[in-house]
Amino acid sequence: MKAILETGEKQQIIIDSFRFDCGARLENLELCYETWGSYRGDNAILITHALTGTSHVAAGNGRPGWWQNLVGPGCVFDTERYFIICANVIGGCSGSSGPASLNPITGKPYGTSFPVITIRDMVRAARHLLDELGVSRLRSVAGGSMGAMQAMEWAALYPEIVDSIVIMAAPGRAYPQSIAYRKTQRQAIMLDPAWNNGNYYESGPPLDGIELARQMGFITYRSEKHFAERFGRQFADKDFFDLHARFEIEAYLQHHGRKLGTWFDANTYLYLSKAMDLFDLGLGCSSFAEGVRRIKAPACVIGFDSDLLFPLYQQKEIADLLAPYNPRVSFHEVKTEFGHDAFLLETEQLSNIVGDFLNQNDI
Amino acid sequence: MKAILETGEKQQIIIDSFRFDCGARLENLELCYETWGSYRGDNAILITHALTGTSHVAAGNGRPGWWQNLVGPGCVFDTERYFIICANVIGGCSGSSGPASLNPITGKPYGTSFPVITIRDMVRAARHLLDELGVSRLRSVAGGSMGAMQAMEWAALYPEIVDSIVIMAAPGRAYPQSIAYRKTQRQAIMLDPAWNNGNYYESGPPLDGIELARQMGFITYRSEKHFAERFGRQFADKDFFDLHARFEIEAYLQHHGRKLGTWFDANTYLYLSKAMDLFDLGLGCSSFAEGVRRIKAPACVIGFDSDLLFPLYQQKEIADLLAPYNPRVSFHEVKTEFGHDAFLLETEQLSNIVGDFLNQNDI
Repeated sequence: MKAILETGEKQQIIIDSFRFDCGARLENLELCYETWGSYRGDNAILITHALTGTSHVAAGNGRPGWWQNLVGPGCVFDTERYFIICANVIGGCSGSSGPASLNPITGKPYGTSFPVITIRDMVRAARHLLDELGVSRLRSVAGGSMGAMQAMEWAALYPEIVDSIVIMAAPGRAYPQSIAYRKTQRQAIMLDPAWNNGNYYESGPPLDGIELARQMGFITYRSEKHFAERFGRQFADKDFFDLHARFEIEAYLQHHGRKLGTWFDANTYLYLSKAMDLFDLGLGCSSFAEGVRRIKAPACVIGFDSDLLFPLYQQKEIADLLAPYNPRVSFHEVKTEFGHDAFLLETEQLSNIVGDFLNQNDI
Repeated sequence: MKAILETGEKQQIIIDSFRFDCGARLENLELCYETWGSYRGDNAILITHALTGTSHVAAGNGRPGWWQNLVGPGCVFDTERYFIICANVIGGCSGSSGPASLNPITGKPYGTSFPVITIRDMVRAARHLLDELGVSRLRSVAGGSMGAMQAMEWAALYPEIVDSIVIMAAPGRAYPQSIAYRKTQRQAIMLDPAWNNGNYYESGPPLDGIELARQMGFITYRSEKHFAERFGRQFADKDFFDLHARFEIEAYLQHHGRKLGTWFDANTYLYLSKAMDLFDLGLGCSSFAEGVRRIKAPACVIGFDSDLLFPLYQQKEIADLLAPYNPRVSFHEVKTEFGHDAFLLETEQLSNIVGDFLNQNDI
């Protein structure tokens, strides 16, 4: 069993052998995680991250956390009260095994020989972590976007472990428009000759491709109104009549694209993006409704009225399917101009909703 | 003066010398156009095309027209009643001078040495055509998307010529989200090494780049609901767990992307896309409102409730700005699941709205 650290330091477990949903098996899979707060036997909460998230959910070790306004001392996920766990997903590039990891058989990075992963794979891999930590129950599993997909799978797969879930900005299955968004982003990465069919670890990563993919994604993470109010038609460059000159919105997106390129593995982007396309709670069940209804735990379902990537009805659908079978399901429509990214930005509204939910369910 | 043909055959005029908004001047600019119906001195209507449109607006010569349900014998733009004119825009690749045309000075295609063009340039160039045809008044100028941008510029620039406009699915100025969509599409084309800074006319066009750009655009041309109902989660390929395997929506988009690549010039895509970004009726005016209010003619303003590219409020804004100054402005919100492409697909609703407008204004 692993010793428990309370400061948000990177730790790792090894999963001896892991069988993926696709049938492939890998040995010695690494899973990177961090924990915050003291474990007191009944106060563990698991936070699951989104596409470009990491295990560093709360501030610590001089680095900000990606959800630090919701997870930390005095926050709604209070690290002085709860024992918070967050793991980098398998397929990731922040400490867990993924396409950039060395394949022990070849001595080279897996690249695209890494098995295609599913959200369920991420959850089943993280399940090993609980055993290593000696945690047998989770008071809650909480996440937004791809993190919420994992939280739903946690509740569906392990009802005996998961006491509740808090899910934001995610559907119970991927719909075609969002698949189309992600598919074109993956194609942007693959269009960059530096991608080289995923073998770029010696020659250098496809920076232009990931920069473009990130920009395309970013448009779907915010709202039309947000961009209109923030940027209007401000021009960033000198010569208006130049094919390459940019409005402020273009410079802003490019900045975010380049930033991701500096640290995020392009193949990981492809794999996690694909996992979201494949996500469907109904897979292997007689219907989507039946698949969703495997969620027996109290569920706090939060959607954002300006979410372009996963429109509100996709969260409402989950709540509506659960409601007749699960009295402790609540659906919350949050009004916001931040779009999909509201799960990272609407601190006050989210803190109130989540706080009420945790209180009502004695969590 | 040009002889008038009535069958929708490609014809051409030469503009001896043309000064672009950016300051550049080109000699012997070609403008390709087609006409339908008989000219009777007072029955000319100009149709203006969108990003990937051509002069072939109505059926003729064994080829379907891109707006053949609205323009033809017995249609709302009745070719037995009106004399219909449609020109390929400058910068285009269907007969008018654009980046793929030969620069007479170098003997090679212009490529990206072609001047950056504006919507106003398109209109000012097409103005020459009216003189050549001996047409001094237009009963109406009608178009959707980039076509509507041109129609607005026609009314703003030439109030003495334009009796009315019919505009669908376009704003009075480009807003940042739509700029972001187009910018990332342009970047996709430029990411294809075959683009080669626009010099691909000997080496072969950037097919992968334009295929991707078209797919990205196509997502914004339809609605989330349209895709969800049409494609759901149908899978197109064999192996579900393959990074490259596709859902039906992906195969569909790819089909459309490839199709455009077979005939559309990638540099033209860049230039027309950029022209839409630069579009702003307020440019050179003291305010946007003042710029819009140059439109004195009766205006039929049509927006689509599911338009993702140019959301409804952007059309309503034009009508609201005009209404106090122009009593013959009407705004029509069309309910549809076709999104932006409704201007091509909602034949019945559009025919009714446009028919009423033309009748009410004795056109």
